[in-house]
Amino acid sequence: MTPALILIGYGHVTRRFVRLLDESRAALAALDVHPVIVGVATRRHGRVFDGRGIDAASIADRLVASAAPQRSAADFITDALTALRAVPALTPVIIEATTLDVVDGEPATSHVRAALAGGAHVITANKGPVAFAYRELAAQAEAASRSFLFEGAVMDGIPLFNLVRETMPTVTVRGFRGVVNSTTNFVLTALERGEPFDEALARMQADGIAEADVSLDVDGWDAAAKTAALANVLLGAQTTPHDVAREGIGVETGARAVAARGRGRRLKLVATGSGQGASVSLRVRLEELADDDPLAALEGQANAIELDTWPLGHMVMTQRNGGLEITAYALLSDLVTVSKRAATARSSR
Amino acid sequence: MTPALILIGYGHVTRRFVRLLDESRAALAALDVHPVIVGVATRRHGRVFDGRGIDAASIADRLVASAAPQRSAADFITDALTALRAVPALTPVIIEATTLDVVDGEPATSHVRAALAGGAHVITANKGPVAFAYRELAAQAEAASRSFLFEGAVMDGIPLFNLVRETMPTVTVRGFRGVVNSTTNFVLTALERGEPFDEALARMQADGIAEADVSLDVDGWDAAAKTAALANVLLGAQTTPHDVAREGIGVETGARAVAARGRGRRLKLVATGSGQGASVSLRVRLEELADDDPLAALEGQANAIELDTWPLGHMVMTQRNGGLEITAYALLSDLVTVSKRAATARSSR
Repeated sequence: MTPALILIGYGHVTRRFVRLLDESRAALAALDVHPVIVGVATRRHGRVFDGRGIDAASIADRLVASAAPQRSAADFITDALTALRAVPALTPVIIEATTLDVVDGEPATSHVRAALAGGAHVITANKGPVAFAYRELAAQAEAASRSFLFEGAVMDGIPLFNLVRETMPTVTVRGFRGVVNSTTNFVLTALERGEPFDEALARMQADGIAEADVSLDVDGWDAAAKTAALANVLLGAQTTPHDVAREGIGVETGARAVAARGRGRRLKLVATGSGQGASVSLRVRLEELADDDPLAALEGQANAIELDTWPLGHMVMTQRNGGLEITAYALLSDLVTVSKRAATARSSR
Repeated sequence: MTPALILIGYGHVTRRFVRLLDESRAALAALDVHPVIVGVATRRHGRVFDGRGIDAASIADRLVASAAPQRSAADFITDALTALRAVPALTPVIIEATTLDVVDGEPATSHVRAALAGGAHVITANKGPVAFAYRELAAQAEAASRSFLFEGAVMDGIPLFNLVRETMPTVTVRGFRGVVNSTTNFVLTALERGEPFDEALARMQADGIAEADVSLDVDGWDAAAKTAALANVLLGAQTTPHDVAREGIGVETGARAVAARGRGRRLKLVATGSGQGASVSLRVRLEELADDDPLAALEGQANAIELDTWPLGHMVMTQRNGGLEITAYALLSDLVTVSKRAATARSSR
């Protein structure tokens, strides 16, 4: 199996993914997965496509040498997939990792549509498509016999969606609650210790963990997008981040965090979803948690999601570390899933 | 796919599994899994085999009406599988759920051997085979193109082995630590509150959670067996519970638990494994944990395992509830895995 990767967006996560592919080459080969990069598109720094394969070390130079983009990235995807049809040994896979516009989920959602329309499998670490258009895109993928995977959209690479999809057959997910935004959890932990809001936030920005537009984190938009994504996938909902009752954190949150800590409790920004389909109830709220709550012990950038299931009861997945490497791994694990499925489909033809 | 189930052992878990099969019939049918029960073997209460299928409601009566067992359960398995060869539409699956002898992992391990030798897939909720003979049995299964699955052996039905096997391709597990025995965690939580050891233990026995022989729990044998199982599967070791440095809890543990709680810490029986292959280091020890340790917040019967991985860092799976239903689900989810694999193997022939 030779996936031909087209990278849409070439930021920190995508660059780490390219290095991880190289570090994992032997393990991937053992799974009969032999990826080649055939295209890279950036918004402002050029584009490159080469059906013969692009050496990872040359990507930056070839992007710089390319002309400034004239057409949209969606058109780039369409053109690249048309060109790849001449090489049937390659399995085209679009890796979508652009910056999210939380108002409408674009341009990522258009990229996913163009990729599926062109016959490619799609992997994204972007919350946008799954938070805004999961049902439509999943149906489009199903009709085209292609995969649409997004493990990195929530909890970085911790295999939450994978867990439910691959390891919990016949289980019903009745609801979820979680701490899903690293920046706000880090800031809340710092506020409890009496650190000023602005200083804690500045540290997260310096470390590159906070969103480029930090209001996406502190106003709860990132958590709301993840809540919508979880509800669309796990609860059969058809919602967007705008349907999530949303609360954020601010300078005034410090006193509440300190007071809660003084009572042996902890203030957390908790994303909650319950119900099924059209009747889901979704919110992102500051909540004071008792110290035996599994979400209460989360320090710094840690994330966790508790699922309420039948018949497995309440189970919690906790990610103690965060970071680029883990999101990059999500793309890689989705790539293995795509390859496995394509191999199975091929052998059963 | 019609799995023909032969149930070895018919205790609480197996009976709950039979009911769960019925409750999940529609969900299983949607996955094209249509199980029939064709055999049940108990140690003292009779055996029944009927290749045409046995109605679940009639199992108890048919066991009582059957003659007292003369031959071993392993022979029963061999005979049943020989008889099933006449019905190629059935896929024989042995469900092994006998009581564990922690000294040698028998008779479960012999049952698994006989089942694989007879051409069946094997599913067990028993720690014994995987704690004592994982490598041998996995090799036997591989050579016979059969599945040997044991999701219920550790953390009941929380899909830990499944998680690593199905959702974490190319990930290296460098070690694990966990609270894996519900009885000792329940007793430790009670001791912290000043409850006497014997009373707490008696409550667990009354609830049917403690092992029939309670020394298996309190002396750390159950945790040691799970530690060996985890090491054999996740760390490539070839160990048995006897290789695990082991500690238990007793009447004298109460004072330590209360003192730790007074210091804002919690006393937990922690199973730890690190290293790879022949160089693993395994132990079950009472440890005082700080309150931000994800294992510290576990109340009552809750279990959790933290994996140290590359590149996903530290991740934790927590089971907040325990119980028969969850172990029964482990058998069901393994049955779905067996069916999926068999369907894939059939279509690629």
